[in-house]
Amino acid sequence: MLIREFEGGRCLLARLDHGAEIIGQITSLIRENYIRAGHLNVIGALDQAEIGYYDQLSHSYHGIQINEPVELASCSGNISLLAGQPYAHVHAVLSGMKGTVWAGHLTSGRIFAAELYVQELAGPDLIRSLDTVTGLNLWREE
Amino acid sequence: MLIREFEGGRCLLARLDHGAEIIGQITSLIRENYIRAGHLNVIGALDQAEIGYYDQLSHSYHGIQINEPVELASCSGNISLLAGQPYAHVHAVLSGMKGTVWAGHLTSGRIFAAELYVQELAGPDLIRSLDTVTGLNLWREE
Amino acid sequence: MLIREFEGGRCLLARLDHGAEIIGQITSLIRENYIRAGHLNVIGALDQAEIGYYDQLSHSYHGIQINEPVELASCSGNISLLAGQPYAHVHAVLSGMKGTVWAGHLTSGRIFAAELYVQELAGPDLIRSLDTVTGLNLWREE
Repeated sequence: MLIREFEGGRCLLARLDHGAEIIGQITSLIRENYIRAGHLNVIGALDQAEIGYYDQLSHSYHGIQINEPVELASCSGNISLLAGQPYAHVHAVLSGMKGTVWAGHLTSGRIFAAELYVQELAGPDLIRSLDTVTGLNLWREE
Repeated sequence: MLIREFEGGRCLLARLDHGAEIIGQITSLIRENYIRAGHLNVIGALDQAEIGYYDQLSHSYHGIQINEPVELASCSGNISLLAGQPYAHVHAVLSGMKGTVWAGHLTSGRIFAAELYVQELAGPDLIRSLDTVTGLNLWREE
Repeated sequence: MLIREFEGGRCLLARLDHGAEIIGQITSLIRENYIRAGHLNVIGALDQAEIGYYDQLSHSYHGIQINEPVELASCSGNISLLAGQPYAHVHAVLSGMKGTVWAGHLTSGRIFAAELYVQELAGPDLIRSLDTVTGLNLWREE
Protein backbone atom coordinates (compact mmCIF):
# COMPACT_ATOMS: atom_id res chain seq x y z
CA MET A 1 0.00 0.00 0.00
CA LEU A 2 1.33 3.43 -0.95
CA ILE A 3 0.03 6.15 1.39
CA ARG A 4 0.63 9.90 1.15
CA GLU A 5 -0.45 12.39 3.80
CA PHE A 6 -1.77 15.86 3.02
CA GLU A 7 -3.34 18.85 4.69
CA GLY A 8 -6.63 20.29 3.47
CA GLY A 9 -5.98 23.20 1.09
CA ARG A 10 -8.43 25.38 -0.84
CA CYS A 11 -12.00 24.20 -1.31
CA LEU A 12 -13.70 25.19 -4.55
CA LEU A 13 -17.27 25.08 -5.76
CA ALA A 14 -17.68 25.71 -9.47
CA ARG A 15 -20.47 25.86 -11.98
CA LEU A 16 -19.10 24.34 -15.16
CA ASP A 17 -20.13 25.70 -18.57
CA HIS A 18 -23.27 24.54 -20.34
CA GLY A 19 -22.27 22.85 -23.61
CA ALA A 20 -18.62 22.31 -22.65
CA GLU A 21 -16.84 18.95 -22.29
CA ILE A 22 -16.74 17.98 -18.61
CA ILE A 23 -13.29 16.33 -18.30
CA GLY A 24 -11.76 19.22 -20.26
CA GLN A 25 -13.40 21.74 -17.92
CA ILE A 26 -12.22 19.94 -14.79
CA THR A 27 -8.71 19.67 -16.22
CA SER A 28 -8.63 23.38 -17.10
CA LEU A 29 -9.81 24.33 -13.63
CA ILE A 30 -7.21 22.27 -11.77
CA ARG A 31 -4.34 23.33 -14.05
CA GLU A 32 -5.21 27.04 -14.03
CA ASN A 33 -5.50 26.94 -10.24
CA TYR A 34 -2.34 24.84 -9.72
CA ILE A 35 -4.21 22.09 -7.86
CA ARG A 36 -1.67 19.25 -7.87
CA ALA A 37 -3.53 16.86 -5.55
CA GLY A 38 -7.13 16.64 -4.44
CA HIS A 39 -10.50 14.99 -4.18
CA LEU A 40 -13.49 15.96 -6.31
CA ASN A 41 -17.22 15.37 -6.60
CA VAL A 42 -19.71 16.50 -9.27
CA ILE A 43 -23.48 16.40 -9.58
CA GLY A 44 -25.44 17.58 -12.58
CA ALA A 45 -26.61 16.40 -15.97
CA LEU A 46 -24.97 15.72 -19.35
CA ASP A 47 -26.57 15.59 -22.78
CA GLN A 48 -24.15 12.97 -24.06
CA ALA A 49 -21.34 11.00 -22.47
CA GLU A 50 -18.74 8.30 -22.87
CA ILE A 51 -18.12 5.80 -20.10
CA GLY A 52 -15.01 3.61 -20.13
CA TYR A 53 -14.81 0.07 -18.89
CA TYR A 54 -11.29 -1.32 -18.42
CA ASP A 55 -10.76 -4.85 -19.69
CA GLN A 56 -8.57 -6.31 -16.95
CA LEU A 57 -7.40 -9.15 -19.20
CA SER A 58 -6.56 -7.31 -22.42
CA HIS A 59 -5.47 -4.10 -20.60
CA SER A 60 -7.54 -1.83 -22.83
CA TYR A 61 -10.47 0.52 -22.30
CA HIS A 62 -13.80 -0.17 -23.98
CA GLY A 63 -15.83 2.98 -24.46
CA ILE A 64 -19.60 3.03 -24.16
CA GLN A 65 -21.06 5.97 -26.05
CA ILE A 66 -24.30 7.35 -24.57
CA ASN A 67 -26.18 9.50 -27.03
CA GLU A 68 -28.99 10.73 -24.82
CA PRO A 69 -29.43 13.13 -21.91
CA VAL A 70 -28.38 11.66 -18.56
CA GLU A 71 -28.35 12.64 -14.92
CA LEU A 72 -24.87 12.66 -13.41
CA ALA A 73 -26.11 10.74 -10.37
CA SER A 74 -22.67 10.14 -8.89
CA CYS A 75 -19.31 11.47 -9.98
CA SER A 76 -16.17 11.41 -7.89
CA GLY A 77 -12.46 11.23 -8.34
CA ASN A 78 -9.01 12.36 -7.42
CA ILE A 79 -6.35 14.74 -8.66
CA SER A 80 -2.66 13.88 -8.94
CA LEU A 81 0.18 14.33 -11.42
CA LEU A 82 0.53 12.59 -14.78
CA ALA A 83 3.37 13.52 -17.15
CA GLY A 84 4.14 16.53 -14.95
CA GLN A 85 0.63 17.99 -15.11
CA PRO A 86 -2.38 17.92 -12.76
CA TYR A 87 -4.66 15.09 -13.90
CA ALA A 88 -8.21 14.23 -12.78
CA HIS A 89 -9.23 10.58 -12.59
CA VAL A 90 -13.03 10.50 -12.54
CA HIS A 91 -15.66 7.75 -12.19
CA ALA A 92 -19.40 8.26 -12.60
CA VAL A 93 -22.87 6.77 -12.50
CA LEU A 94 -25.29 8.06 -15.15
CA SER A 95 -29.03 7.51 -15.57
CA GLY A 96 -31.20 7.98 -18.62
CA MET A 97 -34.82 9.00 -18.90
CA LYS A 98 -36.05 5.44 -19.44
CA GLY A 99 -34.30 4.23 -16.30
CA THR A 100 -31.10 2.84 -17.82
CA VAL A 101 -28.07 3.19 -15.53
CA TRP A 102 -24.48 3.26 -16.79
CA ALA A 103 -21.40 3.33 -14.53
CA GLY A 104 -17.63 3.36 -14.89
CA HIS A 105 -14.71 5.60 -15.80
CA LEU A 106 -16.00 8.95 -17.12
CA THR A 107 -14.09 9.52 -20.36
CA SER A 108 -16.02 12.54 -21.59
CA GLY A 109 -19.41 14.21 -21.44
CA ARG A 110 -21.12 17.31 -22.74
CA ILE A 111 -22.41 19.42 -19.85
CA PHE A 112 -26.06 20.36 -19.51
CA ALA A 113 -25.43 21.55 -15.93
CA ALA A 114 -22.62 20.51 -13.59
CA GLU A 115 -21.63 21.57 -10.07
CA LEU A 116 -18.10 20.66 -9.06
CA TYR A 117 -16.61 20.43 -5.58
CA VAL A 118 -12.82 20.26 -5.29
CA GLN A 119 -10.90 19.69 -2.05
CA GLU A 120 -7.30 20.64 -2.73
CA LEU A 121 -4.73 18.56 -0.87
CA ALA A 122 -1.47 20.28 0.08
CA GLY A 123 1.56 18.07 0.48
CA PRO A 124 3.91 15.80 -1.44
CA ASP A 125 3.73 15.21 -5.19
CA LEU A 126 1.72 12.13 -6.01
CA ILE A 127 2.77 10.91 -9.45
CA ARG A 128 1.17 8.43 -11.86
CA SER A 129 3.30 6.21 -14.07
CA LEU A 130 2.73 2.98 -15.94
CA ASP A 131 2.13 -0.06 -13.77
CA THR A 132 2.90 -3.11 -15.88
CA VAL A 133 0.80 -5.47 -13.71
CA THR A 134 -2.45 -3.65 -14.51
CA GLY A 135 -1.49 -1.63 -17.60
CA LEU A 136 -2.76 1.51 -15.83
CA ASN A 137 -1.05 4.75 -14.84
CA LEU A 138 -1.02 4.32 -11.06
CA TRP A 139 0.57 6.12 -8.13
CA ARG A 140 4.13 4.88 -7.71
CA GLU A 141 7.03 5.37 -5.37
CA GLU A 142 9.19 8.16 -6.81
CA MET B 1 -17.05 28.81 -15.51
CA LEU B 2 -18.02 30.34 -12.18
CA ILE B 3 -15.58 29.43 -9.40
CA ARG B 4 -15.79 30.32 -5.72
CA GLU B 5 -13.02 29.62 -3.21
CA PHE B 6 -13.69 28.56 0.39
CA GLU B 7 -11.86 27.34 3.46
CA GLY B 8 -12.87 24.15 5.20
CA GLY B 9 -15.23 24.88 8.09
CA ARG B 10 -16.94 22.50 10.51
CA CYS B 11 -17.22 18.82 9.64
CA LEU B 12 -20.32 17.02 10.84
CA LEU B 13 -21.31 13.38 11.04
CA ALA B 14 -24.99 12.82 11.80
CA ARG B 15 -27.31 9.89 12.23
CA LEU B 16 -30.59 10.93 10.66
CA ASP B 17 -33.91 9.82 12.19
CA HIS B 18 -35.50 6.50 11.32
CA GLY B 19 -38.86 7.15 9.65
CA ALA B 20 -38.14 10.80 8.78
CA GLU B 21 -37.94 12.30 5.27
CA ILE B 22 -34.29 12.56 4.22
CA ILE B 23 -34.23 15.86 2.30
CA GLY B 24 -36.22 17.51 5.09
CA GLN B 25 -33.75 16.22 7.69
CA ILE B 26 -30.73 17.43 5.71
CA THR B 27 -32.37 20.82 5.18
CA SER B 28 -33.19 21.16 8.90
CA LEU B 29 -29.64 20.27 9.87
CA ILE B 30 -27.99 22.80 7.54
CA ARG B 31 -30.42 25.62 8.43
CA GLU B 32 -30.29 25.06 12.19
CA ASN B 33 -26.48 24.99 12.04
CA TYR B 34 -26.20 27.97 9.66
CA ILE B 35 -24.29 26.02 7.03
CA ARG B 36 -24.48 28.29 3.98
CA ALA B 37 -22.11 26.37 1.73
CA GLY B 38 -20.79 22.85 1.77
CA HIS B 39 -20.34 19.36 0.41
CA LEU B 40 -22.28 16.35 1.68
CA ASN B 41 -22.33 12.57 1.40
CA VAL B 42 -24.82 10.03 2.79
CA ILE B 43 -24.89 6.24 3.00
CA GLY B 44 -27.75 4.20 4.41
CA ALA B 45 -31.09 2.75 3.40
CA LEU B 46 -34.57 4.11 2.67
CA ASP B 47 -37.89 2.30 2.75
CA GLN B 48 -39.37 4.43 -0.04
CA ALA B 49 -37.98 7.15 -2.26
CA GLU B 50 -38.60 9.47 -5.16
CA ILE B 51 -35.92 10.06 -7.77
CA GLY B 52 -36.18 12.97 -10.19
CA TYR B 53 -35.01 12.94 -13.77
CA TYR B 54 -34.79 16.35 -15.45
CA ASP B 55 -36.14 16.52 -19.00
CA GLN B 56 -33.57 18.73 -20.70
CA LEU B 57 -35.93 19.52 -23.59
CA SER B 58 -39.17 20.32 -21.75
CA HIS B 59 -37.36 21.79 -18.68
CA SER B 60 -39.43 19.78 -16.19
CA TYR B 61 -38.69 17.10 -13.60
CA HIS B 62 -40.16 13.63 -13.98
CA GLY B 63 -40.48 11.84 -10.66
CA ILE B 64 -39.95 8.10 -10.31
CA GLN B 65 -41.67 6.78 -7.20
CA ILE B 66 -39.98 3.77 -5.60
CA ASN B 67 -42.27 1.92 -3.23
CA GLU B 68 -39.87 -0.62 -1.85
CA PRO B 69 -36.89 -0.70 0.52
CA VAL B 70 -33.65 0.43 -1.12
CA GLU B 71 -30.00 0.77 -0.22
CA LEU B 72 -28.69 4.31 -0.52
CA ALA B 73 -25.62 3.10 -2.40
CA SER B 74 -24.37 6.56 -3.31
CA CYS B 75 -25.65 9.95 -2.25
CA SER B 76 -23.75 13.20 -2.60
CA GLY B 77 -24.43 16.85 -3.09
CA ASN B 78 -23.71 20.42 -2.26
CA ILE B 79 -25.07 23.22 -0.08
CA SER B 80 -25.60 26.78 -1.25
CA LEU B 81 -28.24 29.51 -0.97
CA LEU B 82 -31.65 29.51 -2.67
CA ALA B 83 -34.15 32.26 -1.93
CA GLY B 84 -31.97 33.42 0.96
CA GLN B 85 -31.88 30.03 2.72
CA PRO B 86 -29.35 27.18 2.84
CA TYR B 87 -30.40 24.60 0.24
CA ALA B 88 -29.08 21.06 -0.36
CA HIS B 89 -28.87 19.73 -3.92
CA VAL B 90 -28.60 15.96 -3.67
CA HIS B 91 -28.14 13.15 -6.21
CA ALA B 92 -28.31 9.44 -5.37
CA VAL B 93 -28.00 5.86 -6.58
CA LEU B 94 -30.48 3.41 -5.03
CA SER B 95 -30.68 -0.38 -5.27
CA GLY B 96 -33.61 -2.68 -4.54
CA MET B 97 -33.65 -6.21 -3.20
CA LYS B 98 -34.14 -7.78 -6.64
CA GLY B 99 -31.14 -5.93 -8.06
CA THR B 100 -32.88 -2.97 -9.67
CA VAL B 101 -30.77 0.20 -9.63
CA TRP B 102 -32.25 3.72 -9.83
CA ALA B 103 -30.20 6.92 -10.07
CA GLY B 104 -30.79 10.66 -10.36
CA HIS B 105 -31.84 13.70 -8.34
CA LEU B 106 -33.01 12.61 -4.86
CA THR B 107 -36.34 14.37 -4.39
CA SER B 108 -37.42 12.63 -1.18
CA GLY B 109 -37.03 9.41 0.75
CA ARG B 110 -38.14 7.88 4.02
CA ILE B 111 -35.16 6.95 6.16
CA PHE B 112 -34.57 3.42 7.37
CA ALA B 113 -31.03 4.36 8.44
CA ALA B 114 -28.88 7.22 7.11
CA GLU B 115 -25.41 8.49 8.00
CA LEU B 116 -24.63 12.00 6.79
CA TYR B 117 -21.25 13.67 6.36
CA VAL B 118 -21.20 17.44 5.87
CA GLN B 119 -18.10 19.49 5.06
CA GLU B 120 -18.98 23.12 5.73
CA LEU B 121 -17.33 25.62 3.42
CA ALA B 122 -16.55 29.06 4.83
CA GLY B 123 -16.38 31.92 2.37
CA PRO B 124 -18.48 33.93 -0.05
CA ASP B 125 -22.22 33.50 -0.52
CA LEU B 126 -22.97 31.17 -3.41
CA ILE B 127 -26.50 31.91 -4.64
CA ARG B 128 -28.84 29.98 -6.92
CA SER B 129 -31.22 31.75 -9.27
CA LEU B 130 -33.09 30.82 -12.39
CA ASP B 131 -30.94 30.10 -15.42
CA THR B 132 -33.14 30.47 -18.48
CA VAL B 133 -30.90 28.32 -20.70
CA THR B 134 -31.46 25.19 -18.60
CA GLY B 135 -34.57 26.12 -16.60
CA LEU B 136 -32.67 25.22 -13.41
CA ASN B 137 -31.72 27.25 -10.36
CA LEU B 138 -27.97 27.49 -10.85
CA TRP B 139 -25.11 29.40 -9.26
CA ARG B 140 -24.93 32.86 -10.81
CA GLU B 141 -22.76 35.93 -10.59
CA GLU B 142 -24.28 38.20 -7.95
CA MET C 1 -30.98 13.32 14.96
CA LEU C 2 -27.57 12.68 16.52
CA ILE C 3 -24.98 15.22 15.34
CA ARG C 4 -21.27 15.30 16.15
CA GLU C 5 -18.95 18.13 15.17
CA PHE C 6 -15.35 17.62 14.08
CA GLU C 7 -12.40 19.50 12.66
CA GLY C 8 -10.68 18.35 9.52
CA GLY C 9 -7.63 16.21 10.37
CA ARG C 10 -5.15 14.48 8.10
CA CYS C 11 -6.05 13.82 4.47
CA LEU C 12 -4.71 10.66 2.90
CA LEU C 13 -4.48 9.38 -0.64
CA ALA C 14 -3.54 5.73 -0.92
CA ARG C 15 -3.00 3.20 -3.65
CA LEU C 16 -4.34 -0.08 -2.30
CA ASP C 17 -2.64 -3.37 -3.16
CA HIS C 18 -3.45 -5.30 -6.34
CA GLY C 19 -4.92 -8.67 -5.36
CA ALA C 20 -5.76 -7.70 -1.77
CA GLU C 21 -9.25 -7.58 -0.21
CA ILE C 22 -10.52 -4.00 -0.24
CA ILE C 23 -12.38 -3.77 3.10
CA GLY C 24 -9.45 -5.45 4.84
CA GLN C 25 -7.04 -2.94 3.29
CA ILE C 26 -9.17 0.05 4.30
CA THR C 27 -9.52 -1.35 7.82
CA SER C 28 -5.77 -1.90 8.15
CA LEU C 29 -5.03 1.61 6.94
CA ILE C 30 -7.40 3.33 9.38
CA ARG C 31 -6.33 1.21 12.36
CA GLU C 32 -2.59 1.51 11.71
CA ASN C 33 -2.98 5.28 11.33
CA TYR C 34 -5.31 5.67 14.33
CA ILE C 35 -8.09 7.26 12.28
CA ARG C 36 -11.07 7.07 14.64
CA ALA C 37 -13.53 9.14 12.57
CA GLY C 38 -13.61 10.15 8.95
CA HIS C 39 -15.07 10.22 5.48
CA LEU C 40 -13.74 8.12 2.61
CA ASN C 41 -14.08 7.72 -1.16
CA VAL C 42 -12.58 5.13 -3.51
CA ILE C 43 -12.42 4.73 -7.28
CA GLY C 44 -10.89 1.81 -9.11
CA ALA C 45 -11.70 -1.69 -10.25
CA LEU C 46 -12.19 -5.08 -8.59
CA ASP C 47 -11.94 -8.54 -10.12
CA GLN C 48 -14.59 -9.98 -7.82
CA ALA C 49 -16.85 -8.51 -5.17
CA GLU C 50 -19.67 -9.11 -2.72
CA ILE C 51 -22.43 -6.55 -2.31
CA GLY C 52 -24.79 -6.71 0.67
CA TYR C 53 -28.44 -5.77 0.61
CA TYR C 54 -30.05 -5.36 4.04
CA ASP C 55 -33.51 -6.91 4.38
CA GLN C 56 -35.32 -4.26 6.41
CA LEU C 57 -38.04 -6.71 7.46
CA SER C 58 -35.99 -9.75 8.48
CA HIS C 59 -33.01 -7.67 9.71
CA SER C 60 -30.45 -9.72 7.85
CA TYR C 61 -27.96 -9.06 5.05
CA HIS C 62 -28.31 -10.85 1.73
CA GLY C 63 -25.01 -11.12 -0.09
CA ILE C 64 -24.74 -10.86 -3.87
CA GLN C 65 -21.57 -12.51 -5.11
CA ILE C 66 -20.12 -10.98 -8.29
CA ASN C 67 -17.65 -13.28 -10.00
CA GLU C 68 -16.46 -11.03 -12.77
CA PRO C 69 -14.28 -7.92 -13.14
CA VAL C 70 -16.10 -4.69 -12.25
CA GLU C 71 -15.42 -1.00 -12.25
CA LEU C 72 -15.75 0.59 -8.80
CA ALA C 73 -17.83 3.43 -10.23
CA SER C 74 -18.75 4.91 -6.86
CA CYS C 75 -17.55 3.99 -3.39
CA SER C 76 -17.98 6.13 -0.31
CA GLY C 77 -18.36 5.73 3.40
CA ASN C 78 -17.50 6.80 6.87
CA ILE C 79 -15.20 5.82 9.72
CA SER C 80 -16.27 5.53 13.35
CA LEU C 81 -15.78 3.13 16.27
CA LEU C 82 -17.26 -0.36 16.59
CA ALA C 83 -16.32 -2.57 19.52
CA GLY C 84 -13.55 -0.12 20.43
CA GLN C 85 -11.86 -0.22 17.01
CA PRO C 86 -11.94 2.06 13.95
CA TYR C 87 -14.53 0.65 11.53
CA ALA C 88 -15.26 1.62 7.92
CA HIS C 89 -18.86 1.51 6.65
CA VAL C 90 -18.70 1.47 2.86
CA HIS C 91 -21.30 1.55 0.07
CA ALA C 92 -20.53 1.11 -3.62
CA VAL C 93 -21.80 1.03 -7.18
CA LEU C 94 -20.15 -1.55 -9.45
CA SER C 95 -20.43 -2.07 -13.20
CA GLY C 96 -19.59 -5.13 -15.28
CA MET C 97 -18.30 -5.40 -18.82
CA LYS C 98 -21.73 -6.23 -20.27
CA GLY C 99 -23.30 -3.17 -18.65
CA THR C 100 -24.75 -4.74 -15.51
CA VAL C 101 -24.77 -2.37 -12.52
CA TRP C 102 -24.83 -3.54 -8.90
CA ALA C 103 -25.13 -1.26 -5.87
CA GLY C 104 -25.32 -1.54 -2.09
CA HIS C 105 -23.19 -2.22 0.97
CA LEU C 106 -19.66 -3.28 -0.08
CA THR C 107 -18.95 -6.41 1.93
CA SER C 108 -15.72 -7.43 0.21
CA GLY C 109 -13.88 -7.20 -3.07
CA ARG C 110 -10.57 -8.24 -4.57
CA ILE C 111 -8.62 -5.22 -5.79
CA PHE C 112 -7.50 -4.86 -9.39
CA ALA C 113 -6.65 -1.19 -8.76
CA ALA C 114 -8.06 1.11 -6.06
CA GLU C 115 -7.36 4.72 -5.10
CA LEU C 116 -8.56 5.71 -1.66
CA TYR C 117 -9.17 9.18 -0.25
CA VAL C 118 -9.59 9.54 3.51
CA GLN C 119 -10.54 12.74 5.31
CA GLU C 120 -9.76 12.20 8.98
CA LEU C 121 -12.14 13.93 11.38
CA ALA C 122 -10.72 15.06 14.72
CA GLY C 123 -13.15 15.34 17.60
CA PRO C 124 -15.39 13.27 19.85
CA ASP C 125 -15.64 9.49 19.74
CA LEU C 126 -18.53 8.37 17.54
CA ILE C 127 -19.51 4.86 18.59
CA ARG C 128 -21.68 2.21 16.92
CA SER C 129 -23.84 -0.13 18.94
CA LEU C 130 -26.86 -2.27 18.23
CA ASP C 131 -30.03 -0.37 17.40
CA THR C 132 -32.94 -2.72 18.03
CA VAL C 133 -35.33 -0.80 15.75
CA THR C 134 -33.25 -1.50 12.63
CA GLY C 135 -31.05 -4.40 13.76
CA LEU C 136 -27.99 -2.39 12.65
CA ASN C 137 -24.97 -1.10 14.54
CA LEU C 138 -25.69 2.63 14.45
CA TRP C 139 -24.25 5.73 16.09
CA ARG C 140 -25.74 6.10 19.55
CA GLU C 141 -25.62 8.53 22.40
CA GLU C 142 -22.87 7.35 24.75
